[in-house]
Amino acid sequence: MTDYTFEDLKDFVDEHIADFLPDIDHKSITLYDSMKYSIEAGGKRIRPVLLLASCHFCGGRVEEALPYACAVEYIHTYTLIHDDLPCMDDDDLRRGLPTNHKVYGDAIATLAGDGLQSAAYEIMSQDMLMYFDDPDQLKKRVGAAYEITKGAGCRGVIGGQVADIETRPDNCSSEMLDFIHINKTAALIIASVRAGARLGDPDETKLNALTSYAENLGLAFQIADDILDVTGKVEEMGKNSGMDRAHDKVTFTSIHGLEESRNKLSQLTDNAVDALSSYYDNAELFTKLAVELAERRN
Amino acid sequence: MTDYTFEDLKDFVDEHIADFLPDIDHKSITLYDSMKYSIEAGGKRIRPVLLLASCHFCGGRVEEALPYACAVEYIHTYTLIHDDLPCMDDDDLRRGLPTNHKVYGDAIATLAGDGLQSAAYEIMSQDMLMYFDDPDQLKKRVGAAYEITKGAGCRGVIGGQVADIETRPDNCSSEMLDFIHINKTAALIIASVRAGARLGDPDETKLNALTSYAENLGLAFQIADDILDVTGKVEEMGKNSGMDRAHDKVTFTSIHGLEESRNKLSQLTDNAVDALSSYYDNAELFTKLAVELAERRN
Repeated sequence: MTDYTFEDLKDFVDEHIADFLPDIDHKSITLYDSMKYSIEAGGKRIRPVLLLASCHFCGGRVEEALPYACAVEYIHTYTLIHDDLPCMDDDDLRRGLPTNHKVYGDAIATLAGDGLQSAAYEIMSQDMLMYFDDPDQLKKRVGAAYEITKGAGCRGVIGGQVADIETRPDNCSSEMLDFIHINKTAALIIASVRAGARLGDPDETKLNALTSYAENLGLAFQIADDILDVTGKVEEMGKNSGMDRAHDKVTFTSIHGLEESRNKLSQLTDNAVDALSSYYDNAELFTKLAVELAERRN
Repeated sequence: MTDYTFEDLKDFVDEHIADFLPDIDHKSITLYDSMKYSIEAGGKRIRPVLLLASCHFCGGRVEEALPYACAVEYIHTYTLIHDDLPCMDDDDLRRGLPTNHKVYGDAIATLAGDGLQSAAYEIMSQDMLMYFDDPDQLKKRVGAAYEITKGAGCRGVIGGQVADIETRPDNCSSEMLDFIHINKTAALIIASVRAGARLGDPDETKLNALTSYAENLGLAFQIADDILDVTGKVEEMGKNSGMDRAHDKVTFTSIHGLEESRNKLSQLTDNAVDALSSYYDNAELFTKLAVELAERRN
């Protein structure tokens, strides 16, 4: 088993991320440009890298998982474009660049988001067609697409977004906060890991361990984000800090305070590492990522 | 072969259209409500009925095609919700009711649209899982989902929308007008018919005949819509007339005038009927629909 590092897989994703954009007619080329703008605007690529790593960890080939990895990143990117719209968070800056609607206007940004969501499903659908006459391979792909579709949907990211919009710090229960974080952030991370696994050949124990890892990592990731919004510097983050408070958003820090947030982050990171501890060195990419995310500054 | 009428199949769709909404947690129940509001706001159900009819026409069972029919209608509905947003067409009225954002606000309406798009793919993905161990049935479903995904995507509806937004009557070529109509309107109608066929067992001749029918029907449908926007009454249409001109939109009538639009509509309707003429009475639903759509008043 080749040992990929996070950077290896991130480079692989960055190199191919635009390859999967649909071959759009020149008459609607602005759609292509606006989708490409956000897709290539950088980002940590955590979800696609986790998908590839998980596929590799379960004996699959990362090259074959690439379409699904890019599909997940397309979905994640569309949620950010819509999230930044004036009618939602009204953010001007994302990953150090003007947000999509600041460059292309609100109408095209809305359609670029719609386009990236549809492109994600088109990528997966097209990949399935290639395995039309190989039932075993087709099943793996149908399974992976199901994981992604579910995580990205109304019982995942979108449900979390709605709850997030409707909840204010002064009426947020701890249960509601967990719901928002699990759905808005963890769901697509869990989906990435499970989809990657299903493209390989995972046994039940391994799939459960990966799922548990991703659940803890997903929550840790969101709490780290909430802490950064309070303590981060704009030049390090590539987006404005203090935005959660400005938008009266529910965050782990606004409900539980900074110290408890840090304790919780540390505990979730330990849990994530523990979930894969029986796999020792083979899980190094995963455990290292969990530790680094807890310490990240952007 | 049972002879379904358009009304039979429309009733079947109307009865089950909300059955496929995801089982959304009560913490994000507004998402469910807003999606249901638009899904149940009526409409002609042309796309889902065509999908069911096409499946039946190709020897498939309409009950098994129902998830795909509803998925197509979810996609069509999401495009309407986003289309009506203030940053797009800014319409207050749709199917005789306030538009989604007038009831739920722009943020929830954006997410309801996103949710309906994702729900469409979740419906199809879930259906595929049920046929996991039946390779022949699974292939039909993968094929049907591919048709829908492509028609709904950037090389279909979304591409047409972008071109529509960016084009004004005074700089619109006849080629651009065709591109907009083929993508914005015909693409999902063609996809519906082809997806339905692939859920049955079509021979190549039948699939081509259905595709040709749908291409002509799709364009005829849009031209009839353009004519109605000029000549229609708001109480018959359930939406405001004259909106295309108010929005400085490209329409067939604005480019070619009313008389040529009527001639073109008549010609496309004849073509649609001719495409299926060798199937005689078995194609009655299709041919009757084409004739009725050309004469419609809403």
